[in-house]
Order: sequence, then structure tokens, then C-alpha cells
Amino acid sequence: MREKQKKYSWRAHLHEIIFEADTPAGRLFDVVLIIFILLSIVVVSLDSVRSLRMYAPWFRFFEWFFTLVFTVEYILRILTTGKPLAYVRSFFGVIDLLAILPTYISLLFPGTHYLLVIRSLRVLRVFRVLKLVQYLKEATMLLQALRASRRKITVFLFGVLSLVLILGSMMYIIEGEKSGFTSIPRSVYWAIVTLTTVGYGDIAPASALGQALAAFIMILGYCIIAVPTGIVSVELTRSFSEQRISTQACPECSAEGHDYDAVHCKYCGARL
Amino acid sequence: MREKQKKYSWRAHLHEIIFEADTPAGRLFDVVLIIFILLSIVVVSLDSVRSLRMYAPWFRFFEWFFTLVFTVEYILRILTTGKPLAYVRSFFGVIDLLAILPTYISLLFPGTHYLLVIRSLRVLRVFRVLKLVQYLKEATMLLQALRASRRKITVFLFGVLSLVLILGSMMYIIEGEKSGFTSIPRSVYWAIVTLTTVGYGDIAPASALGQALAAFIMILGYCIIAVPTGIVSVELTRSFSEQRISTQACPECSAEGHDYDAVHCKYCGARL
Amino acid sequence: MREKQKKYSWRAHLHEIIFEADTPAGRLFDVVLIIFILLSIVVVSLDSVRSLRMYAPWFRFFEWFFTLVFTVEYILRILTTGKPLAYVRSFFGVIDLLAILPTYISLLFPGTHYLLVIRSLRVLRVFRVLKLVQYLKEATMLLQALRASRRKITVFLFGVLSLVLILGSMMYIIEGEKSGFTSIPRSVYWAIVTLTTVGYGDIAPASALGQALAAFIMILGYCIIAVPTGIVSVELTRSFSEQRISTQACPECSAEGHDYDAVHCKYCGARL
Amino acid sequence: MREKQKKYSWRAHLHEIIFEADTPAGRLFDVVLIIFILLSIVVVSLDSVRSLRMYAPWFRFFEWFFTLVFTVEYILRILTTGKPLAYVRSFFGVIDLLAILPTYISLLFPGTHYLLVIRSLRVLRVFRVLKLVQYLKEATMLLQALRASRRKITVFLFGVLSLVLILGSMMYIIEGEKSGFTSIPRSVYWAIVTLTTVGYGDIAPASALGQALAAFIMILGYCIIAVPTGIVSVELTRSFSEQRISTQACPECSAEGHDYDAVHCKYCGARL
Repeated sequence: MREKQKKYSWRAHLHEIIFEADTPAGRLFDVVLIIFILLSIVVVSLDSVRSLRMYAPWFRFFEWFFTLVFTVEYILRILTTGKPLAYVRSFFGVIDLLAILPTYISLLFPGTHYLLVIRSLRVLRVFRVLKLVQYLKEATMLLQALRASRRKITVFLFGVLSLVLILGSMMYIIEGEKSGFTSIPRSVYWAIVTLTTVGYGDIAPASALGQALAAFIMILGYCIIAVPTGIVSVELTRSFSEQRISTQACPECSAEGHDYDAVHCKYCGARL
Repeated sequence: MREKQKKYSWRAHLHEIIFEADTPAGRLFDVVLIIFILLSIVVVSLDSVRSLRMYAPWFRFFEWFFTLVFTVEYILRILTTGKPLAYVRSFFGVIDLLAILPTYISLLFPGTHYLLVIRSLRVLRVFRVLKLVQYLKEATMLLQALRASRRKITVFLFGVLSLVLILGSMMYIIEGEKSGFTSIPRSVYWAIVTLTTVGYGDIAPASALGQALAAFIMILGYCIIAVPTGIVSVELTRSFSEQRISTQACPECSAEGHDYDAVHCKYCGARL
Repeated sequence: MREKQKKYSWRAHLHEIIFEADTPAGRLFDVVLIIFILLSIVVVSLDSVRSLRMYAPWFRFFEWFFTLVFTVEYILRILTTGKPLAYVRSFFGVIDLLAILPTYISLLFPGTHYLLVIRSLRVLRVFRVLKLVQYLKEATMLLQALRASRRKITVFLFGVLSLVLILGSMMYIIEGEKSGFTSIPRSVYWAIVTLTTVGYGDIAPASALGQALAAFIMILGYCIIAVPTGIVSVELTRSFSEQRISTQACPECSAEGHDYDAVHCKYCGARL
Repeated sequence: MREKQKKYSWRAHLHEIIFEADTPAGRLFDVVLIIFILLSIVVVSLDSVRSLRMYAPWFRFFEWFFTLVFTVEYILRILTTGKPLAYVRSFFGVIDLLAILPTYISLLFPGTHYLLVIRSLRVLRVFRVLKLVQYLKEATMLLQALRASRRKITVFLFGVLSLVLILGSMMYIIEGEKSGFTSIPRSVYWAIVTLTTVGYGDIAPASALGQALAAFIMILGYCIIAVPTGIVSVELTRSFSEQRISTQACPECSAEGHDYDAVHCKYCGARL
């Protein structure tokens, strides 16, 4: 009995260190974790630079070191949490797993260990460490505005895709294969590059008609960028003004959502 | 008499399958149609890729297959609809015709079958299949905001075109033919590329004065992109707020600005 | 006396044709004028295309033809208007003069006749012809919003210019002359190309540190483009909402600028 | 005693000239200072142009001339101000020091004198000279809106950085080293160039899959530019409307939302 008690308290203690950031030990754990995450990303990135190839053994060593540390952390999280399945299925649970898998997979398939950059998503934990509750609220508000406008943005994206498909194939017919428009998929790619005002210049129209159509696409892209911007602006404004709606409920019918200047409930007419 | 009855019911049955999406058969028809549309676009696109030239006979075969299917569909739509002329003249009627014509025309004029990408517009039918009534409402709202701001955007476009005409010809005079500004139309094209912040780099100023003017054009384009964005934002905000606030006045105190779901005046409590 | 009467009526008649667009003759005059303006711009543009050099005599002929027509029009406008000086000083008066001067100046200084593209500004007359009173109102509203935000945009531009000056010279020190950053003015030009997200690619950083700073400049430019957009959006919203302010004046103190929902004058308290 | 009085008045007089712009002498001092600042920046910039290398001695002479003038000005400012430490620590105090240091440091470390472009920050003094109090208010409002939205923009930047890290490394795996994606840091740099719609074109995807992912990144960048724009728009709108509407409530009917210039309640006419 006492053995179990002790074991339980040991799990609870570890849980506090790993999942909470209230105690000095928990805070230290999170700070060290963030530093390890950042260092592991740096190592993976530098490992890909050709001029640093001579340090490859060191990079491999650190990669395995960080992977083992993160594996231990992952196992400890599963062991100490009350609902292991809920953690494994959660956003951070999936990320934590994806952050260690590539190194093990690279034993079977060489080259895949570059997928380790997925670890960058783990950096999101930094918000927790810094106790940036405010920042999380801001992030939630932004995500909410994006989610509220996702239907309009879907419609917009659909229109853009139809547009680049048609304009791209028109350019293919106009320009031919001389100036880089060698196929319809490539021309559609060019249309996207142009409409989004990126403009690499690896493919560029040479004929007068092609340049005229290209100019049209550019001005179109210059103008319709206004559409997603307008959508998000409106949603952000709305989510702000919803903050201005009173949280007061009607004493009669319990309806909510009254304006701040409302004197009577707009549903039943009772005095607020 | 009975023959006609039977024939009529046969037409009505087909009409339900082709034009409606309520029955399982109608839904299946629409889903198969969308898949055929997407596949036909993929075939036309891949047909233009040089490295896949060896599969050309297969592409040609599928192109004719899809064209025949769409032709049969087009004829059936005309036969089963109550008002054939209304369908032929409608947006989707025109698109459906344009989606099959290029293949037949390509028998006379080789090369025109690439115009088949117009079929991409048929993809818009997907909205119907998925019963995305909501999405259509969003699209209508976006189109309405764009239509409401079309006058301001016309004025803006006119100003932009005058601007690139003048700036382009100034660059032609400043840069001369050394750095790619070989004619006024080409210089105007460059001015559009620069003002819209696309920036291919196929033409770029080399002289100090030319670079100074180019820098001016860039900053101008960076700032005036705010104009269409502002216009669309304002129109979207307006169409949103018009949606939410009723024009109904309170019969007691004449107060206005009630929400659409309000039953009682929020100021005096009188029934609206 | 009668001679003068006749002469006056002749001037009045011409004035009606040239300055008004109410009569069929006046409308015809304006339409022909617009067509001439567009054709004259096309001629000047094509004249600069090298591959059309063989048609140069024809272009020269048309250039002189249009210049003479516009000169006659300019003189007639001065003669028939009641206040010649007011016309000469007006926006269109200056444009009309600038539209004919380059051809005459080109007799003295060859090459300057390309300045004829200033004629494109004359196209603004099209608004008058089409009786687009509405469009002029829209244009006025846009210009008003830009004028109202010119102080904020000046401050913004000043900040941007200081920024590109400092960032450009930092890049000059970092990159050196290997990768195209051959002088500070050229580096500042590059910084403008990058900050405004134009990105020609004629100059691009090669060193790791240079690319890091370039990435910083890009993200900066990507974010601060929000500033002019926000400014113009706010001004446009404001000019819209000012439209919503009642034109009703107080019967007591004659004060204006009341909201539509105001019942009492906000200055003296009298009932509106 | 009188000596001190005289000395004090001499300091007070200089203080008025250097720090204030009310007297003719003070205004003249500021105007001359601005001209000197602009000229010194021009000299440093031209000094870096290779084709003007022959004028190097002149540039060096002017550089030392301006540095000495600014050094004298800096010392005078410290001597004449009441709180020397407050000035040295202030924004302009630090800028004034940084504007003269590089020339002296260049005696020890050649090449550093290009840092003199920091002098461009001194140009901000122009706001004071022109007595542009209004402009400073506008600048304050812009900075305030940016500061109010800095949390949301931080969250946004964090998301963008995670995105380019992941997308860049995916491109590295997809494209390999053939088309310029030679390392993960370089691929991340490319992802930033593409997401911000700069698009140099020095690195561009060549494979079909790479171009598809690039197209995705472009459209993403085209859409999420809406986020910072929306944030700043909302903040600017808020700071505007807060400026215009008083928080004062009517003492009679408790109505709110009165303009700042209102004397009477617009609903019931009671005196505010």
C-alpha cells in the first residue's frame, strides 16, 4: 500500500515538473527543454550545409543525443499524465512523436532525418514557459478570425485557382515553348507566380501579346489581394466589437448578447 | 396518351437526376460528373508536357472520351429541361458548351484543343454537389462587395494605367535601349511589373537616375496598393453591418438600429 | 451691332460644342476628341518600337496631324471660353498645353517628342464624355481619403526612407562588392527593391549573414505594408461614415454635423 | 557674481538657439543643421561609388568637416542643457553620438566610417524644425497603433517563422541540390523570399513537385499578408474612434456615445 502511495507521489511530482510551470523545477525543465529544441533545430539545419560537412559526425552525435532526450521526455509524459491516450492524441502529443520519429526512421531510410525540422513546431511550447497567457489569447483571437473567414477565403482560393488555370493555359497558347512556357502545368505555375506578385523571372513572356496578358494578370493580382485582406479585416473588427457586447443576461428570459447601451431585453422587453 | 405519359415521366426522371442533387441517383450523377471534369482537366494539362509525349495517344483517347460524355450530358440537359433556351443562355449553359467545342474545333484547327482548360470553370458545379448553400452565400457576398466597389476600382485602375504610361515612357527616355527598355510599350510593361511589386528582373534599370525613378515607382506601388484594399475592406464592412442591423424603427420611441433578431425595442421595451 | 451679336452667338455655339456635352454636336466633339487622344498615344508608343522603324514617316505624319488638331482645339478653347486665364491655369488647361508642346520642342531638341505620352492625362476627359458624374464623385472621395491621410503617409514614407538608408548601408558593409552591392546608393536601391517586395533579383545577397539580414528586411516589408493599408482603410471608412452624418441644421443655433439618430441639438439642446 | 550671471545668460542664450526653434536664430540654427545632416549623408553615400573614387580626398575632407561640426554641436548641447545626463540618454542624444563616432573609430578600424549613414536618423530632427507638431501627433498615433498590435504581430511572426522553417526544409528534401536548394538555411531563406512575395529568382524550384509546393507557399503568402494588415487596420480604427467619442454619460438619461464637442445630450437635450 505504502509502496503504491510512494510510487503515486513520484508520478505526481514528475507530472508537476513536466506538465506544469509553477514550481522552480517545472520552470527549469521547460527552459532547458526549449533550449534543447532550438539547439536540435540548429544542428539539423547546419548538418545540411555542404561547407560544414567535416563536422558531420558531431552533428550526427548531437542529433542522436537530442532524439534520445526527447524520447525519454515523450515516454515520461505518457507515464506521468493521467490520461495517456488524450495526450498522445493531442496537438502537442502528435508533434512530440513526429519530433523523434525521423531519426529512428533514418536508420531504415537514409535522408529522412531532415524531417526533424518538424521539431520547430515544438518551439510553440515557448508560449507556455514564458507564461504568456496574454499572447495565447491574442493567438486564439487571430485563429478565430481566420476560422470565421475560412469559408470566404475558400471561395476566394477557388476563384484564384480557376483563374490561374485559365490564364496559364492562355499564356501557353500565346507564348509557345520559346520563352519557357513549355507545358500547361508550368504555365499555370507561372500564372501563380505572377498573380501573387512573387515574380521570380525564371519564366517571363517575350511576345507583345504575352506581355499584355501578363500585365493584365499583374494588375488583377494587385487588386484582388484586397479581397483576403478585406475579409480578415472585417472578421478582426467583428471579433473586437463582439468583445464590446455586454455579457449581461436578461433577468427574465436569460437571453444574452445585449449591446452595452441596451436598457430593455431585445427579446422579451424586460428591464435589464 | 400513355406513351406520352411514360415519355414525360422518363424526361422528368432524367431531369431529377441531372439537375437536382436530392435523390441518391442525382447525387451520384453529380459526383461522377465532378470527377470526370477534374480528370479531363488533368488529361489536357498532362498532354502538354513534353516529357509525357509518348502517352499522347492515351491522352487523345481520354480527351475524346470525356468530350463525348460531356456532349451527351449537354444534349440530355437541353432535352430534359423545361426551358432549353434559358439553360443554353445561362452561365453554366455557356460553360458547358465551351467545354466541349474545342475538341471538335481541333479537328479543323490543330492546337486549339488546349482551350479545353475552359472546362475548369465547370468545377464550379462542385458547390452544388456538396450542397454548400452557405458557400454560395459567401461567394454572393464577396461578389456583391466587389460589384459595389467596381466604380472606385475603375477610377483607381484608370489612374494606375495613366501612371504606368507616363512613368514607363519616362524610363524609356532615361534608360535608353542599353538595359532592355527597347520601346515605350516594353517600358510600360516594365512599369506595370514594378508598380504591382511583381518584379521579374528580365528588365531592370542600370543608370543611377533610372534606379532612382524605379525606387520611386516601387514605393508608390507599395503605398497605393492600400487603395483597392481599403475600398474592398470598407465595402465588406458595410455589407456585413447592413446584414446585421434592421432598418425597423420602434413604434413607441422611434429608436432605430435594432438587430434583426430583436423582438422588443432595446431602449423602451415596446414590442417591435 | 448685329455683326457682334452674330459673332457672339458663334462663339457661344462653339463654346457649347467644345465645353459642354449636352447637345449631340458637343457629344460628338468629345467622342472624336477621345478617339484622337487614344490614337495619338498609340502612335507615339508604336513609333518607339524598333521593329516598326520602317513606318516611321507615317508615325511622324500622324504625330504632326494630331498635334495640329490639338493645337487648334487648344486655341479654340481659349477663344470661346469666358475666362481664358482661368482655363489656361486649370488642371485640364495645363495638360492640354503639355500635350502639344513636345512636338514643337522636338524641332529644337530631337528625342523629346516621346514626352507626348503626357497626352495620356488627357484621357481623363473620358469621364466627362460618358457623363460619369458618379465616377467623378468616387474619384473625389478617393482623392479626399488620400489627402486626409497624406500626413500619416508622409510620416510613414519618412520612416521607410530612413530604414532603407540604414539597412542598405549595412548590406553594403556585410556583402561587399562581390554580389552586386557595389556602392551605398546601389545598396539602398536594393533595400527598396526588397522592402517593397518587388525583388528583381539583379542584386541578391550571397553570404549567410547578408541573406539573414535580407530575410529580416523582407519580413519587415511584408508586415509594414499593413501601415499604409490601414491608414487608407480608416480614412475611407471615415469618409463613408461622414456621409452618414445628417445634413440637418439646428433650428435654434444653426449648428450642423448631427448624427442621424440625434433628437436634440448637441450644442444648444434644442429639439431638431 | 556678475560674471556668473553673464555666463549663465550666455548658456541660456545658446540653449535657446540649439534646443528651441522659436527665435529667428534658433530656426536658422536648425535649418543649417538639417542641411548639414543631409549633405553629410550624401557625401558618405557618394564616397562609396567606385566611379567617383577620384574625388575621394574631397569626400574625406567633407566627412571630417561635418564630423567636427557635429562634435562641436554635441558638446554644446551637453554644456547648455540643464540635465546633461538626460540628454545623453535620450533618443536624440544617442543618435547624435552614433552620428560622430564612426569617423573617429575609422582611424582605428578602416571601413567602419560607412556606419556614418546612421546619421540618417538625425534627419528626424526635421520634424522639429518645420514645427510639424501635427506630424508628430500623427507619428505618435501610428506608433501607438503598432505598439497596441505588437502582441498579435509577434504571434503572427512566430507562426510565419515556424512555417518557413518547415516549408523550407520540405523544399530541401524535394528539390535536392540541383536547383540551388543547397542547404536547409538556404531553403528557409528561399521560403521567406517566396512567402513574402519578394521572389528574387536566384533560387527557383525546377521539379514538378517543388513547383507545386512553391505555388502553395505563394498563395499562402498572398493570403496571410491579410493578417498583419487586418491587425493594424483594426488598431488604427480603434485609436481613431476612441479619439472622437467621449466616454461621458448624460446626467439625465445616462445615454453614452457623445462626441467630444457635444454640450447637450443628443437624445434628451439635457446639459452634459
